[in-house]
Amino acid sequence: MAEKVRVVIVGGGFAGLAAAKGLRKASDVSITLIDRRNHHLFQPLLYQVAMAGLSPAEIAAPIRGILSRQKNVRVLQGEVTSVDLAENAVQADFGAVGFDYLILACGANHSYFGKPDWEEYAPGLKTLEQATEIRRRVLTAFERAERETDPVKQKQLLTFVVVGGGPTGVELAGAIGEMSRYTLAKDFRSIDASLARVILIEAGSRILPMFAAELASKATRDLEQLGVQVWTSSMVTNIGSNSISVGTETIQAATVLWAAGVEASPLGRTLKLPTDRVGRVIVEPDLSVPGHPNIFVAGDQAHFDQSEKPLPGIAPVAMQQGRFLAANILRELHGKPREQFQYFDKGQMATIGRSRAITEVGRWKFSGFFAWVVWLVVHIYYLTGFRNRLFVVMSWAWSYLSYRRGARLIVEKEWRSRPQDEKPPAS
Amino acid sequence: MAEKVRVVIVGGGFAGLAAAKGLRKASDVSITLIDRRNHHLFQPLLYQVAMAGLSPAEIAAPIRGILSRQKNVRVLQGEVTSVDLAENAVQADFGAVGFDYLILACGANHSYFGKPDWEEYAPGLKTLEQATEIRRRVLTAFERAERETDPVKQKQLLTFVVVGGGPTGVELAGAIGEMSRYTLAKDFRSIDASLARVILIEAGSRILPMFAAELASKATRDLEQLGVQVWTSSMVTNIGSNSISVGTETIQAATVLWAAGVEASPLGRTLKLPTDRVGRVIVEPDLSVPGHPNIFVAGDQAHFDQSEKPLPGIAPVAMQQGRFLAANILRELHGKPREQFQYFDKGQMATIGRSRAITEVGRWKFSGFFAWVVWLVVHIYYLTGFRNRLFVVMSWAWSYLSYRRGARLIVEKEWRSRPQDEKPPAS
Repeated sequence: MAEKVRVVIVGGGFAGLAAAKGLRKASDVSITLIDRRNHHLFQPLLYQVAMAGLSPAEIAAPIRGILSRQKNVRVLQGEVTSVDLAENAVQADFGAVGFDYLILACGANHSYFGKPDWEEYAPGLKTLEQATEIRRRVLTAFERAERETDPVKQKQLLTFVVVGGGPTGVELAGAIGEMSRYTLAKDFRSIDASLARVILIEAGSRILPMFAAELASKATRDLEQLGVQVWTSSMVTNIGSNSISVGTETIQAATVLWAAGVEASPLGRTLKLPTDRVGRVIVEPDLSVPGHPNIFVAGDQAHFDQSEKPLPGIAPVAMQQGRFLAANILRELHGKPREQFQYFDKGQMATIGRSRAITEVGRWKFSGFFAWVVWLVVHIYYLTGFRNRLFVVMSWAWSYLSYRRGARLIVEKEWRSRPQDEKPPAS
Repeated sequence: MAEKVRVVIVGGGFAGLAAAKGLRKASDVSITLIDRRNHHLFQPLLYQVAMAGLSPAEIAAPIRGILSRQKNVRVLQGEVTSVDLAENAVQADFGAVGFDYLILACGANHSYFGKPDWEEYAPGLKTLEQATEIRRRVLTAFERAERETDPVKQKQLLTFVVVGGGPTGVELAGAIGEMSRYTLAKDFRSIDASLARVILIEAGSRILPMFAAELASKATRDLEQLGVQVWTSSMVTNIGSNSISVGTETIQAATVLWAAGVEASPLGRTLKLPTDRVGRVIVEPDLSVPGHPNIFVAGDQAHFDQSEKPLPGIAPVAMQQGRFLAANILRELHGKPREQFQYFDKGQMATIGRSRAITEVGRWKFSGFFAWVVWLVVHIYYLTGFRNRLFVVMSWAWSYLSYRRGARLIVEKEWRSRPQDEKPPAS
């Protein structure tokens, strides 16, 4: 039996998983998929976990379980810290793994534009842990406002600021507006939750720059109907523990969320190959890195120019790149020449609270209820796993009919009943 | 309008919630329910969250949401630190709240028999945070075993010890056995998950002492069929980071779980009234505390003797006590004499993995599939909220048919993308 071709995939996101699945029939290939997490995360719905609409398990599935029947894959949970380009091996926290082909698909983190200390006061939304933290902060702000007697502090607690007018920022701001107006309005006695102030801050001249101006304008009106103030051309100058400064103005806000900038996984820079200013590795037309035709970068970690601008960091790009890489590797193994990657743009969409969305497919643009239904169908279709689909559909149906949210839990970080530094209650 | 009678309830568990609901028609009463958490937790199913079968939100519901329509209740999230018996006020972290009647129903924590440092190595199971921590530890042990090359360490990672042979310990041990044999068996490549060693340790002469001996014996055989070794008359002498000592023998085990002892909430001891050795307040026949007829203690925090032994810390006792207190307060407000509490024992049950349970109702004892169906029905019936019931039924149906577990997530405690003390990956 011939030695198997070793394919190592780093990252079990959309790109990595699509690449692994694309090689499912390749019996002469041995795949190792390495991820820091044990789960694949459906990031497009992550804001719903942050906003207490869905549970973490409803949008995540164990990578091992997804690939359980694909016998040519082994899944290892661990962190890859560097790539040895000369030796064709990746170094992980559990040891080195050699490869014949390497696919790096480690995704992106948030970027605070050189102000890493802002993260403490303004969490971003890339992981389940961050989603749970945001949920904790938003729900806790309402709880604290309810028992606060000082009206100035109460107002500060009921002010929510979202930084960044892209799809995530719009979805977060819309969801806070909707939650305070519908779900929480009747649950409090001292405060009127529906008077919560939600401000969406965008540095550019308008929100949703990747959409047509008319759709962005529709989204702005939808947000305003949910009580969200949209501040465009507004630059954040400082973020503190209970305030945020925009230009020279300071807003007293207990909760600030960050949806402004992304930065590719730091692993890309360790390759010492050309990267763009956000750390994405600049790849060749076949997604390989310069000088190393057996090493590929895909998804949010890759900078791939098409029509003279880089492809955006969205799930469809990652999925198409993952599938493309699997196909190209198979082609090469069968002695055929490689092809070049070409992104097929199926359109884009964003949702703004209950029953509202915007969708753009080529020249078609639509908004409102129909766009929202399309949004629902597309997201359910792409969600991984029958169970997750079923549960998300049910959660949505229940929330839609009841105006409630099924995952309104404040979960603390500390699990010990009495941490070392905590004293027993005073007697 | 007459001044309203102020009832303060501390704790939104089974007892506190039942008391609040029991007073729903009392328009002359103003209730304040204070809880550290924003959610009521259905503790009897908590072990299923720990074992990745259910999501936290499926067995928890926001207290505020449960009582949303009951206009005579306000809910405050906060921690009560002491009770001022002379002034009839509770002191919480957000300020003081005065009362005419006080119901303390703060529940219990784990007790490590004077060895609090064991908690770090052997988490107990009382909160959602602890359940998530146990889930993380158990799933991580399998992940680490998969990438471990040293067979001794691999064996250590695949050894799970549960301390305590009560219902929680039996349910945890059974679930680990079941999960490794069915759910995980096909998902790993290097290890055989079904060879995981699970040991249940009990200091007494048999497990499940509150059940009839024949049922405990049936449960032992069921556990053994799931690969669980049951060690009775075994005293834990030490617990370290990767080992546990039983008598003079030391077991190398990466995962130890604690289901052995409980201790009532420390708030009880601050009253300076008689408590039993686990900190439960010894209450009068009407659940009031000696010398303070307007202060009651209920649920796991109370020591109430019936038939010359204290009632167990289980949900039915807490619910009946909560309802009883509401009824007694109403009686007194209408000028009628108080009644004395009497627990009506409807029986008890425990489950041992898939399709197996034991149930004891008075003199009736049954086990196996029928007992398991009864267990399912009873737990669904008592679960709070339509949504939770529906989702739990669906989760169980899915798990039963697919042999999978829907919440197999390892969630980390750290939400920041790069904590202060972590360095970027080496280049």
